[in-house]
Amino acid sequence: MSLAKPDHVGYFFGQSVIALAEGLRAGSLTCVELTQAALDSIERLNPSLNAFVQVDAAVALAQARKADALLAQGLNLGPLHGIPVAIKDNIDTFDYVTTYGSAHFAGYRPSEDALCVQRLREAGAVIVGKTLTHEFAYGPTGDRSLQGAARNPWDARCITGGSSAGSAAAVASGMVPLALGTDTGGSIRIPAALCGAVGFKPSFASVPVQGVFPLSSSLDHVGPIANHVEDARLLYEVVAGRTCATDTGSRPLRVGWITSGSFGPVDAELDQHLYRAAQRMFGEALQETAELAPLAAAMKDTLLVLQRAEAYEVHAERMQQAPHKFEQEVRERLELSREVRGWQYIRAQAEQARLKAVMAGLFERFDLLVSPSVPITATAVDAREVRVGAQDIDVRAAVLSYTSAWNLTGLPAISLPAGQVRGMPVGLQVIGAAGADDRLLQVMMQRSVRSS
Amino acid sequence: MSLAKPDHVGYFFGQSVIALAEGLRAGSLTCVELTQAALDSIERLNPSLNAFVQVDAAVALAQARKADALLAQGLNLGPLHGIPVAIKDNIDTFDYVTTYGSAHFAGYRPSEDALCVQRLREAGAVIVGKTLTHEFAYGPTGDRSLQGAARNPWDARCITGGSSAGSAAAVASGMVPLALGTDTGGSIRIPAALCGAVGFKPSFASVPVQGVFPLSSSLDHVGPIANHVEDARLLYEVVAGRTCATDTGSRPLRVGWITSGSFGPVDAELDQHLYRAAQRMFGEALQETAELAPLAAAMKDTLLVLQRAEAYEVHAERMQQAPHKFEQEVRERLELSREVRGWQYIRAQAEQARLKAVMAGLFERFDLLVSPSVPITATAVDAREVRVGAQDIDVRAAVLSYTSAWNLTGLPAISLPAGQVRGMPVGLQVIGAAGADDRLLQVMMQRSVRSS
Repeated sequence: MSLAKPDHVGYFFGQSVIALAEGLRAGSLTCVELTQAALDSIERLNPSLNAFVQVDAAVALAQARKADALLAQGLNLGPLHGIPVAIKDNIDTFDYVTTYGSAHFAGYRPSEDALCVQRLREAGAVIVGKTLTHEFAYGPTGDRSLQGAARNPWDARCITGGSSAGSAAAVASGMVPLALGTDTGGSIRIPAALCGAVGFKPSFASVPVQGVFPLSSSLDHVGPIANHVEDARLLYEVVAGRTCATDTGSRPLRVGWITSGSFGPVDAELDQHLYRAAQRMFGEALQETAELAPLAAAMKDTLLVLQRAEAYEVHAERMQQAPHKFEQEVRERLELSREVRGWQYIRAQAEQARLKAVMAGLFERFDLLVSPSVPITATAVDAREVRVGAQDIDVRAAVLSYTSAWNLTGLPAISLPAGQVRGMPVGLQVIGAAGADDRLLQVMMQRSVRSS
Repeated sequence: MSLAKPDHVGYFFGQSVIALAEGLRAGSLTCVELTQAALDSIERLNPSLNAFVQVDAAVALAQARKADALLAQGLNLGPLHGIPVAIKDNIDTFDYVTTYGSAHFAGYRPSEDALCVQRLREAGAVIVGKTLTHEFAYGPTGDRSLQGAARNPWDARCITGGSSAGSAAAVASGMVPLALGTDTGGSIRIPAALCGAVGFKPSFASVPVQGVFPLSSSLDHVGPIANHVEDARLLYEVVAGRTCATDTGSRPLRVGWITSGSFGPVDAELDQHLYRAAQRMFGEALQETAELAPLAAAMKDTLLVLQRAEAYEVHAERMQQAPHKFEQEVRERLELSREVRGWQYIRAQAEQARLKAVMAGLFERFDLLVSPSVPITATAVDAREVRVGAQDIDVRAAVLSYTSAWNLTGLPAISLPAGQVRGMPVGLQVIGAAGADDRLLQVMMQRSVRSS
């Protein structure tokens, strides 16, 4: 089966970071060459995709030259040494303007890097620029920000999904081989799925959020977007500041397919396509589990209460002093968010704890759970309704419907590219037990899902 | 100086639990005699004071007979063995109706004891009955409950203060030598001060709240009301499930007198009276500290937000389904409490953490802080305004003004009887560093404050 390619293809399309790193070590490539390839790809593709909102060739190439100089001295800082990486624009970088996607921070220069960016620099990565985020990461479509909409590499009329919109478009199109994103309700996995990349949301708090602009402190996660699970793992290890353990056990996997429709309507063709992909991937280990459907409404409601109260708390002064500077849709969400009551927030915290415990019980019977990452393919930029089967549903609710439960419960979840439906990428989501990030990544590295 | 006595005096007035326990051990007293003395005092005094809302002579005497039987077998369960103790009616007891002061729970019988009551029984204490609580402990006056108002033993026209209204009246009048109360904004210290008893609010979470009806989970404390600090410590040790350490160090004390007026207006005569009491108690160790006044408003606002959101969360269903069953003033407070926003609650939690840290800094320079417990003497039952100096102020705000900061910051604080002003008792509040309950109690046992 041939791999369909997006309309917009850059140097790093489908490339492996591990192979690139070998080339650097062997001397067949230089860090400056890779960075220049990224800059050239960005220059060529970005006008139609709007993935990057800030690039500075001089800053990037200076980092690359330093990386080359270290290699020439025999100093290799690790597998990301000299690899171009893009950073979502809600993550602080001292050397690139960081706008958080908002007019409130137009031209803002943080005084220091986020901790995850510090770690990337210490690992020798070359930060080539900042990628578009939905304003303050408060939206799953990636089409509302100070810099407008990011565009899907497979069809530039369509959304990337968000909020890590630019990071997914940049990796999926091959402008860079790796990018950092953030995920509060699905913001790494949604654009990864809609653009055809790997997106990994680690366990809650396993990657530090220091220097990342908060959306909702009890739900925010930082994680990688990549072409390959191996590469996502490399980036994860660096930003988490730890090395993944290798599970040498060989007991058979128990995998639960979350009964179709459990978290809301799913496009029928996409559903069948992904179920077959899951069957190929897990064979007889795959069994259906209907236990999540009864929890779905509570999970969504609880997440919404936590997210709203926490998001408004972050923006209360801006909403009081300069509400007009927010993009209209984001401002409307914040106006709603202001209304959450304190007692409802307290209830939601208790409910979150209860639901985490319920999930711990379910993971006594399963090693992994599987579902679509997103129940639809990418919709048109600015569209807010989509027909699924016989229903018109809200695009924003739809794209979040299968991902947000794993922010609420803090479980590691990865979206894997699983081919295309009607010419657009779709993603398979695989969820692990609490803290079992390493096992999830290891299992996913061993299974091919690139077939469609 | 002679000790003024309240109008209503029972058997245990001014008595020492330690002396009573010695009498039991020596055989000069029996547990049944003590319990009967409590029942007789209650029968005589309670019609005018309304301190007890539930007494069951048969239940109490059965416990006392059992305690005597154990002593006869040579089994002494500790210093509270055979001592009559009263329990505030927001603390569960399996053998007494527990109403939480509310029509919502008229006739309610919990299936089991609160953990602190279990510990009291294991220590051999005789539970003689339940004492009046302001409805759901949500009020500092002690005059609004299913059972009406508790009355001050020094002047039955006046409030006891609350919410541990009945516990303070029962101890101060000598119906019992010891009682348990709860304190969310001052509810042990306020009635102790206004009735002339010792009231101790331990460090947050040092006494378990399991089985205590919640008012505000981040501010609720359980603690003793007694005639003497030694007795309060005995009760504290039992309910905390630990023995206080004795500090054998002898470095000089550093005591801060909280500049008069820091937390709001204070009756001038009361202020001078208490300052002199503090001077007598601490001599040259006493120095003034003005550092709290600038924090006072933030402390009150923060406590109010936490308390309101948490209180409404507890009562949301009752407010929706049967609001008429709440006493009107409590219902009005809950209606206000419903309006606290989630984002404000989150801010308040962060502010609480900040203020705890500020207090930790202040306690690097002081071992103890001292202030009036309550800035006024007991007002008339149902009065809601009081003149202090030239100002008319809200009684509820006034009585809470000097105590609630130590609920917010979780610090141990004790109210000590310090004589009378215009014939009514006043209390001196002494506050310790976080977790320094043992030192606070030890120092207070060594200093006399019973002089007026």
